[in-house]
Amino acid sequence: MALEFTLPTALILIDNQSGFSNPKTISHWGTTRSNPSYETNLQALLSAFRSARSSSSTPLEVTHVFHSSTTPGSPFHPSNPEQGIRPLDFAIPASDGSEPVFWKSVNSSFIGTGLEAHLREKGFRQLIIAGMTTDHCVSTTVRMAANLGVVDRYLGDGPVRLRSDGTHENEGSVDKGRIVLVGDATATFGKAGIDSETIQTVSVASLDGEFADVFATEEVVKALSKVQN
Amino acid sequence: MALEFTLPTALILIDNQSGFSNPKTISHWGTTRSNPSYETNLQALLSAFRSARSSSSTPLEVTHVFHSSTTPGSPFHPSNPEQGIRPLDFAIPASDGSEPVFWKSVNSSFIGTGLEAHLREKGFRQLIIAGMTTDHCVSTTVRMAANLGVVDRYLGDGPVRLRSDGTHENEGSVDKGRIVLVGDATATFGKAGIDSETIQTVSVASLDGEFADVFATEEVVKALSKVQN
Repeated sequence: MALEFTLPTALILIDNQSGFSNPKTISHWGTTRSNPSYETNLQALLSAFRSARSSSSTPLEVTHVFHSSTTPGSPFHPSNPEQGIRPLDFAIPASDGSEPVFWKSVNSSFIGTGLEAHLREKGFRQLIIAGMTTDHCVSTTVRMAANLGVVDRYLGDGPVRLRSDGTHENEGSVDKGRIVLVGDATATFGKAGIDSETIQTVSVASLDGEFADVFATEEVVKALSKVQN
Repeated sequence: MALEFTLPTALILIDNQSGFSNPKTISHWGTTRSNPSYETNLQALLSAFRSARSSSSTPLEVTHVFHSSTTPGSPFHPSNPEQGIRPLDFAIPASDGSEPVFWKSVNSSFIGTGLEAHLREKGFRQLIIAGMTTDHCVSTTVRMAANLGVVDRYLGDGPVRLRSDGTHENEGSVDKGRIVLVGDATATFGKAGIDSETIQTVSVASLDGEFADVFATEEVVKALSKVQN
């Protein structure tokens, strides 16, 4: 289904922080990283979204999620001298305070943060998700966004309740929102002897269709260019 | 770190249901499935756990999670004539009611169920997780179990709170429990042109060390055989 911006939409950018790029800390994650175009794609995505936002009558919001580790020695612990928690230059939140920032200390952007309440309160019905790393924080966030139904609306009795034999106590209608993963605006590291591009490809394939629809940066940017007042 | 059963432990078995094995419905998921030994490994695991339970002074519990789809036509919808929601013969809950059963309708065993409250109330500090499918329901459940900290105990001020600059408002001590994924007692399907064993291997590698410790069925069975009064 074509990508449109007719629903109130939040661009959720995850963990675009120095700790994943600083040569002094990158070895913490692995020696190879997938998707050399991640930085340029993420930058293009954010730039197009900000432009569309300024000319759209439908609410569009850039939402940043950053990681602060509770593990001493982690590149993302606030005390790390390399300041790995610092946003990358191309992903610094707008200085006018118009782009909400959420800090997390686990992989899911929905645990220990106010993100779910924020999205529901503002009525967002579509999420565009990108960032780092594909198989850890991005994957966990996409999975929970879908399973929590943060962009869905129940028209009847609310979420289905299940009896002890697996039958449904109620099965109300749901007006499904949409979760989009920008597959080539994410990146990850190799692990367990598996190269980073294989981890990337499999991680995206496991999310596609089950938890999110996957689009390329170019497709999202093109759809954003059609946003009009 | 060696596997031991000195902590109160729940064996969480996910979606061991006919819908993943019935030739009439299996094509819904894909043409190839990983790990031909999944059935025998799952059976050996459950059998060893039940034996250990009967001779252990530490609480051990078998917990079954099953899936009931809200999508008409799904092999797991209760109305499907092939009865895909039926537990596989080797994974039928004990007839004496001693093995709690939770039904879910999304991938995560923790959303829309009482599983988290149950585990916390009973004081389980170790989870042994196995079942289907590796990259969808098993992966999502393992991720949330870890991120929710269902087996952890806070000794001080509770979960860390984060300030708007990413620094920690508090950073109390945590007595970490343990989450174990039985890597070869899980299975999944190929997708997006990627073979099922690659999906399996990558899915387990992405969980290992970040969300769970991965052990083989043989290692778990061996550790269970050492459980004594």
